[in-house]
Amino acid sequence: MSKLETAMDTIIDVFKYYSSKEGDKFKLSRLELKNLLRGELNSYLQTSRDRTKVDEIMLDLDSNLDGTVSFEEFVSLVTQLTVHSSGFFQGYTPCYQVPRCGVGKI
Amino acid sequence: MSKLETAMDTIIDVFKYYSSKEGDKFKLSRLELKNLLRGELNSYLQTSRDRTKVDEIMLDLDSNLDGTVSFEEFVSLVTQLTVHSSGFFQGYTPCYQVPRCGVGKI
Repeated sequence: MSKLETAMDTIIDVFKYYSSKEGDKFKLSRLELKNLLRGELNSYLQTSRDRTKVDEIMLDLDSNLDGTVSFEEFVSLVTQLTVHSSGFFQGYTPCYQVPRCGVGKI
Repeated sequence: MSKLETAMDTIIDVFKYYSSKEGDKFKLSRLELKNLLRGELNSYLQTSRDRTKVDEIMLDLDSNLDGTVSFEEFVSLVTQLTVHSSGFFQGYTPCYQVPRCGVGKI
């Protein structure tokens, strides 16, 4: 497998570890998501160039703890937080739209 | 760093390797993206449960080779292809929306 495929498999493993604890294995409760982010993205959160954005994302999780998050939404959120902390993206204009679920079937 | 952060750093490295070859380092040309997907997601593309969806994505790249793709759009596309090949997502209803760029600034 390539580096990219191995990285995506790792992201699935992390998602699966938290999402399989209760209820729908394809969804993360917002509480599970918050615990995941605190546990698995700690250095990204600490080194973020935009504390306001990180706080906004985490506060949004707090304010609406009853919803659930899909794998695509989870990856999109992690990507947003990554873009704010990786040195590569210094001076970059990020996208903020989060994908919505519910179409198609495998 | 955590497994998730290491995985995201790997994804950035792969994106950077292809995006830094010419023009804007924060963008992939669609041709670069197609080469990346062929080169880095080959086993995912081969084992996809939805050949039609993969062909649709690749054909879309062909039909519109003049556009560019941001890091968020790239990750979203890789996520869509991942969901179609990883065994974990058997029976899962995927999201198909792709994020659009252009708001905010770091």
